[in-house]
Amino acid sequence: MAASLTLHPDRALPLDREQRAVAREIYGQTAHLPLICMHGHVEAEVLASNTAFADPARLLVTPDHYVTRMLVSQGIAPETLGVRRVDGGPTETDSRAIWKTFCANWKLYRGTPSRYWLEHELVEVFGVDQVPSAESADALYDRISERIAEPGFRPQQLLDTFNIELISTTDPAGSDLAHHAGLARQGLGERVVPTFRPDAVVHLDRPSWRDDVAALAKVSGTGTGDYAGFLDALRERRAAFAAAGGLATDHGHLLADTTPLEPAEAAAIYDQALAGTVTADQAARFAAHMLYVFAGMSCDDGLVMQIHPGVLRDHHAGIAAKHGPDVGFDIPFAAEFTTALRPMLQTYGHDPRFRAILFTLDETVYSRELAPLAGAYPSLRLGAPWWFLDTPGGMQRFRETAVDTAGFYNTSGFVDDTRAFASIPARHDLSRRVDAGFLARLVLEHRLNLDEATETAVDLAYNLPKIAYQRRI
Amino acid sequence: MAASLTLHPDRALPLDREQRAVAREIYGQTAHLPLICMHGHVEAEVLASNTAFADPARLLVTPDHYVTRMLVSQGIAPETLGVRRVDGGPTETDSRAIWKTFCANWKLYRGTPSRYWLEHELVEVFGVDQVPSAESADALYDRISERIAEPGFRPQQLLDTFNIELISTTDPAGSDLAHHAGLARQGLGERVVPTFRPDAVVHLDRPSWRDDVAALAKVSGTGTGDYAGFLDALRERRAAFAAAGGLATDHGHLLADTTPLEPAEAAAIYDQALAGTVTADQAARFAAHMLYVFAGMSCDDGLVMQIHPGVLRDHHAGIAAKHGPDVGFDIPFAAEFTTALRPMLQTYGHDPRFRAILFTLDETVYSRELAPLAGAYPSLRLGAPWWFLDTPGGMQRFRETAVDTAGFYNTSGFVDDTRAFASIPARHDLSRRVDAGFLARLVLEHRLNLDEATETAVDLAYNLPKIAYQRRI
Amino acid sequence: MAASLTLHPDRALPLDREQRAVAREIYGQTAHLPLICMHGHVEAEVLASNTAFADPARLLVTPDHYVTRMLVSQGIAPETLGVRRVDGGPTETDSRAIWKTFCANWKLYRGTPSRYWLEHELVEVFGVDQVPSAESADALYDRISERIAEPGFRPQQLLDTFNIELISTTDPAGSDLAHHAGLARQGLGERVVPTFRPDAVVHLDRPSWRDDVAALAKVSGTGTGDYAGFLDALRERRAAFAAAGGLATDHGHLLADTTPLEPAEAAAIYDQALAGTVTADQAARFAAHMLYVFAGMSCDDGLVMQIHPGVLRDHHAGIAAKHGPDVGFDIPFAAEFTTALRPMLQTYGHDPRFRAILFTLDETVYSRELAPLAGAYPSLRLGAPWWFLDTPGGMQRFRETAVDTAGFYNTSGFVDDTRAFASIPARHDLSRRVDAGFLARLVLEHRLNLDEATETAVDLAYNLPKIAYQRRI
Repeated sequence: MAASLTLHPDRALPLDREQRAVAREIYGQTAHLPLICMHGHVEAEVLASNTAFADPARLLVTPDHYVTRMLVSQGIAPETLGVRRVDGGPTETDSRAIWKTFCANWKLYRGTPSRYWLEHELVEVFGVDQVPSAESADALYDRISERIAEPGFRPQQLLDTFNIELISTTDPAGSDLAHHAGLARQGLGERVVPTFRPDAVVHLDRPSWRDDVAALAKVSGTGTGDYAGFLDALRERRAAFAAAGGLATDHGHLLADTTPLEPAEAAAIYDQALAGTVTADQAARFAAHMLYVFAGMSCDDGLVMQIHPGVLRDHHAGIAAKHGPDVGFDIPFAAEFTTALRPMLQTYGHDPRFRAILFTLDETVYSRELAPLAGAYPSLRLGAPWWFLDTPGGMQRFRETAVDTAGFYNTSGFVDDTRAFASIPARHDLSRRVDAGFLARLVLEHRLNLDEATETAVDLAYNLPKIAYQRRI
Repeated sequence: MAASLTLHPDRALPLDREQRAVAREIYGQTAHLPLICMHGHVEAEVLASNTAFADPARLLVTPDHYVTRMLVSQGIAPETLGVRRVDGGPTETDSRAIWKTFCANWKLYRGTPSRYWLEHELVEVFGVDQVPSAESADALYDRISERIAEPGFRPQQLLDTFNIELISTTDPAGSDLAHHAGLARQGLGERVVPTFRPDAVVHLDRPSWRDDVAALAKVSGTGTGDYAGFLDALRERRAAFAAAGGLATDHGHLLADTTPLEPAEAAAIYDQALAGTVTADQAARFAAHMLYVFAGMSCDDGLVMQIHPGVLRDHHAGIAAKHGPDVGFDIPFAAEFTTALRPMLQTYGHDPRFRAILFTLDETVYSRELAPLAGAYPSLRLGAPWWFLDTPGGMQRFRETAVDTAGFYNTSGFVDDTRAFASIPARHDLSRRVDAGFLARLVLEHRLNLDEATETAVDLAYNLPKIAYQRRI
Repeated sequence: MAASLTLHPDRALPLDREQRAVAREIYGQTAHLPLICMHGHVEAEVLASNTAFADPARLLVTPDHYVTRMLVSQGIAPETLGVRRVDGGPTETDSRAIWKTFCANWKLYRGTPSRYWLEHELVEVFGVDQVPSAESADALYDRISERIAEPGFRPQQLLDTFNIELISTTDPAGSDLAHHAGLARQGLGERVVPTFRPDAVVHLDRPSWRDDVAALAKVSGTGTGDYAGFLDALRERRAAFAAAGGLATDHGHLLADTTPLEPAEAAAIYDQALAGTVTADQAARFAAHMLYVFAGMSCDDGLVMQIHPGVLRDHHAGIAAKHGPDVGFDIPFAAEFTTALRPMLQTYGHDPRFRAILFTLDETVYSRELAPLAGAYPSLRLGAPWWFLDTPGGMQRFRETAVDTAGFYNTSGFVDDTRAFASIPARHDLSRRVDAGFLARLVLEHRLNLDEATETAVDLAYNLPKIAYQRRI
């Protein structure tokens, strides 16, 4: 089978001919805009070291839990895909074999965004012209390997190729930001910026908490032996992140609860955590408290706060014990925002210094909670659909259920949640196509004129993410 | 910028050409039907006094929290929009300045129903032909002001202009219905009717409760010093509302809970409320109990019961303290119906004297709870999408998720939830367009024939609201 | 009124002309595939005895709670529709009168799947060519009666007419499977298979529990006087079901909770149930425990586990007391899966011997919980939309929200949830049409090619149900 792989110029545009024609016109105005990538999972080290990617499997399969979990769901063990072991057990090291397994199961991705992104990457980024299959696997492997070896395919060169104006990494509170310092020395300090993610030190009952808080103390030069020191250390790091160009913080919590504690209680719980006697309930209340505290710090230092609750991480303990976190076994559940965010919003919701961007994996909250909140509070922006939801249908449903009440201008514009560096252009391109289709419908239903629709499309693709995160146009 | 503002005859109809042609044919049969307006927020006083509206800002901007909250969400303070202060602070009184702020931010309404309604009003009601903008604001202000000054633009005259056959106001239990008496003297007693809304006296922990229950005692001539007297006073007012043409009651509750209390416990909680010692939990249980009690009263007096739970009112205490309620800071949350309504339905669900209409701001309950309930219990009708949900998309999703199980004939037909009097025709017109589009799809998918679709459209626009509320065709 | 009833060949295909053309091509490849009917409510006795159906009302109206509840919701009492009484009261026995009531209210079914299925049945199965109405009722009754009397209309003959390759009945744990033995003697043992449904014996607080567990003891020949015996009896029956061709078990629970108990605690609760002192909480915890236990048994005997939580059965006690269960008063509510299934999945989720198929009546869990779970765990398949949700819109929304994350190949393919035997072909046909429309969209959006779409359609209609339940292609 040597079926040929091509990208149709109208892919992911609406199928109605008239709507497609209008969408094409709108998309034509956004297709070539620079990319603003405010929530990536590309490692700063990859960009700072600028070494060549290893091979097709290590670039496109193994690190992308969207891709591996689909194979796992059909009975293929993670270790056969090269997924790292944290238990010391063996994992497949033959990248060509991993690649072949992936190609042989191409059928499983039908209808998924992974399929869409991968097709885009294979054709646009790697110049592949054959459909993946067991038969074509070796040829594709060779083609991609060649491409990876080209000097123009180094990570920093791809920033230009991909037209990335600004990209944010995600870094723990305890990071020394050495790679960002390196990037700054290479003249990339304003183009590649860190995001402050303190999850590891605010969830007191995580097994690694004491190590993480010790790392925070070390890097900040601030004792974390008590709660006051802990807050000081966090403030020091936030300042360091801001100095390194950071624009935002990122908070993955089980719940969106922002109920503050009395400082004395927070301090006492913190002490218990240090003593190893904290309870799960105390840890949950402390995490909620810290969201409230971070909102206050955001008012002081201007870092934009990203909040995304509602995922039960490491759903399967066996997988976590064998492979560690972030391998596709984080499962969403319903988490509410209306009452949970209220304490934070009572205090900071109308503070002009405060900005929070809200993300969810539960589509039901768009029309019920998030659009009404973002459509009322000046401090809030509704983030883009994300993770499981940045799909053609997911992005369309987001617009359909959020714009009615929030409008377009209380949303963040497109924010990618990339795992695989090479998928960034595909993700932005898809979002521009889907938004063009949505706006074309409004035009043809005589609810917007074409000029308005085009201006809105440009705002969603480019201006709104800058406004949301940089707080300037 | 003097961009011209027009209304396309096919606006909000489906974009597919064939579907649009069928929809146009169906819509042609409903476009001119009289309006039945069973859940309005137009004040009886406005209609009874029949004085001219003040000015464009006081007619279209300031009183419409859909409009003001969008501006607030982008950092414009409510007081600069003339929103009333309850704290004694200053508020903008220059209506022309308010109007200009609104026009200058026209862009924010893109894609929202406010934009759709306002365009309809500006063109159809006020004869405006320019797009709102900072530049056109003064010209529009003058044009609308002229129109408002015309004798034909008085509220009572607009009842005719708008083709309103029946309109219901919303009135507290303690209302003396004086304005309705005035309307009756002017021959409008059957056209403008009151709706009995007892929320203020059943939520025992509201700060104003004792004042409100005293007002109830006074107007009803019935002592409310104990629970039995309270019930008698409510019965007296319901009878007075019915005598004034009232057809329905309206109940905004945090939850849909209808669990009854033993009368002795209800009486004891009531006494505690009078003594100022009621707890939040007791108040919640009393409110649930009263829904059950009101269902029984509905069996006796025939008033149709409207229930709408699931909104956390006055989400921001600071806004409420400064501006009072109903200024755009009521935020929905998930509230379930299946178990909550069960006590009431066990007793009254099959009683032929009982009729309840259920509203929600949580779209997820349409297919999961409300359609199955309304598709089984003869006493229930599923209300129209409402508040945040009476949008083109919201109304379409309602049909898509409710009709499967409830059919069309267990729904209430269109019920507007208007804030701004001048928006009433736009709201009804939009709903007729969306329903025509939905029915056209069924015709083209060969699931209904055109005659059935047209008859259904007429029923949804006109007959079903009369059947639902008047209980006759 | 003698309006003629016809079926359009393009019914329920997309209305867009291009999409319809592609959908027609895809549907053409699935329309004539054999039916795999893995979750039916046809009684084994009907098939084993192979006696003629009684009359039109007893075939199409009275036993179908989708049909009767719609009439009940408009004030028609169940007993006037011949719905059985369990309280000894009278029920209508004049089938012609029942049929007339149904036909006279044909309008109520507009837009519902019942209307769609019934039209299909009336035309395709019974050769009716008039629209049901009060006027046409007698003629239709006569036409259908004639047809029922034909020898080719016996249940076993219909298996051929309907092209049913495999059909599963649903049988209680205490069934002696005598009818299946009879079917085996008639050579139908592999075509009509039982499904093991132990609900009656695992919900300890049901009034009939002790009778049901006694029946289990008797038929299994295993004492159920203690918990160990109870488990042995269940294992014996599962083996008997498997020996009779059974492929699956079926579990209707209030919640999806799978938290196991310590065996000693389970045994103690069981003893309390025997003693009549079990509490509601204990019963709920025992039911959750039994889901966990059944998962383990599935690993041992290979029966596929079907789980469907989230319905409050017998919502109206008065209806249940008068008419018994399953008469249209089971109402869904929100039931979560992510945390509920976790205990079971921790133990068995990656066990290659385990297979569970998950059903829901809450559409919000598709994208939030079920697709992420089925897209990760190899033991899980996401079942078809069901009960209130196997409608044109419901099936389309399922694909739109589940495929993104689960793909097609982690779903079960179509599983009908039929009440009325004669509706089986209509249900499968509708699902094939809707899937063809969905896949046609992907083709026209250039997200799949036509060959892939057609192969996927065939898999969804035929191969995937076999793979899901038989665990082979």
